[in-house]
Amino acid sequence: MAGSDSTREARLGGPAIVLVAPQLGENVGAAARAMLNGGLTDLRLVAPRPPWPNPRALAAASGADRIVEGARVFDCLEDAVADLRRLYASTARPRDLRKPVLTPRQAVAQMRAAAPDGEGCGVLFGPERTGLDSDQVAIADAVLTVPLNPAYSSLNLGQAVMLVSYEWYQSGAEEEDADAPPSMGPEGERKRQATRAELHNLFRHLESELDAANFLWPPHTRSNMVRNLRNFIARASPTEQEVKTLHGVVTALAGRKWKRGDDD
Amino acid sequence: MAGSDSTREARLGGPAIVLVAPQLGENVGAAARAMLNGGLTDLRLVAPRPPWPNPRALAAASGADRIVEGARVFDCLEDAVADLRRLYASTARPRDLRKPVLTPRQAVAQMRAAAPDGEGCGVLFGPERTGLDSDQVAIADAVLTVPLNPAYSSLNLGQAVMLVSYEWYQSGAEEEDADAPPSMGPEGERKRQATRAELHNLFRHLESELDAANFLWPPHTRSNMVRNLRNFIARASPTEQEVKTLHGVVTALAGRKWKRGDDD
Repeated sequence: MAGSDSTREARLGGPAIVLVAPQLGENVGAAARAMLNGGLTDLRLVAPRPPWPNPRALAAASGADRIVEGARVFDCLEDAVADLRRLYASTARPRDLRKPVLTPRQAVAQMRAAAPDGEGCGVLFGPERTGLDSDQVAIADAVLTVPLNPAYSSLNLGQAVMLVSYEWYQSGAEEEDADAPPSMGPEGERKRQATRAELHNLFRHLESELDAANFLWPPHTRSNMVRNLRNFIARASPTEQEVKTLHGVVTALAGRKWKRGDDD
Repeated sequence: MAGSDSTREARLGGPAIVLVAPQLGENVGAAARAMLNGGLTDLRLVAPRPPWPNPRALAAASGADRIVEGARVFDCLEDAVADLRRLYASTARPRDLRKPVLTPRQAVAQMRAAAPDGEGCGVLFGPERTGLDSDQVAIADAVLTVPLNPAYSSLNLGQAVMLVSYEWYQSGAEEEDADAPPSMGPEGERKRQATRAELHNLFRHLESELDAANFLWPPHTRSNMVRNLRNFIARASPTEQEVKTLHGVVTALAGRKWKRGDDD
């Protein structure tokens, strides 16, 4: 990418593809291949099954080596998505979590509107057999589900990534013909969606105060309650400003000393 | 499918997927899996590499067994597409043939408009390494090309079929919300696009007359001239009525006895 003088090449980048605990190197390679077909380059792996680097990933990448080699590896999901502002959880199964459900086409349209180059956007994919668990889905803004034949839906990881990458590329091709979407207004900075790192800070702040208040008790119900709270907050896609305000709210409600400047 | 009481299931069917000389059973299986995800069921194979049936195809079909087992096998492309009225040739490479080039989304929109259930429509896919040759592309109404990252386009057969099947299913999902497309008008029968069998009859008629007239001469140029003629006719997507008229034209031009009733 560096040094390329092609404007088409310069349009590459796009949302991050975050593979959570991928089990087979072949599938990471297939995902990389699918990504590059759609012009996506930011691959992130959360705790891939050892070994990593995995020669099978390179073999399956069919020339998309630089995506595999450039993949960043993280120990935990929270770190992998820290810088992202819009996050989609790819899952086929209906959840008890209340969360918008978007098709790939709708999700890429949202991402293009938020950031024409996809910066700060990402899509989570779960492990091959089990998919994302509810705690992982909960931190996303929305669920991404591919509408397919209800009598037979069977996508492997590479195919799922392919459909998202494909839609990303198609949405860019359409955009070339259309008027440029409105860019961020003068209030942009205040309206910018919070990063996942900022969200996780807020989660921890809230949860520590709730623990202190014995609200997340008894222990066997805690994880469920935390998940539903996180899901609620993430579903609202808060802005940076709103996150600051919510910190203030938590602090205030918890009766701590609250510095006015923090939230406004 | 038979005996199903589900309306969603009843909507299955869709355009035919025609694999020309597929070399690996795995890829036939992957194509079948991709098809059923999008609700497509009509798989046709032209001269698949032996053995067929191929146990590797079933293994790769991941449960889409009935598509593999129901695949019809043909010795030649002409027979495989005889009943089809709209035919698309999937190919990535630019050709010297003048022919409309459509994205999968545009192609499925055309097919939905021609036949909401895809009846009489089909998409050709070539052998894994070589793709369709120019003679095979020439008999299609249009070329189908997937817009992808120009710096890296690498789809395998299963992925290419997946994208077409996916777009077919998406176009149906959109249709459910929209008004039903206008159905065939009162002049439908006369305006119905010719079948490939009718087109091939016309090709043969034309070419035999041209041979008789020494037009397709010298021999080493014949295949090129035939291809370009077929391409020209197919690109125009003639109706049944037009094919009859063209027969009449050929007959008349060739100076044969021409029965008026044949073309009008």
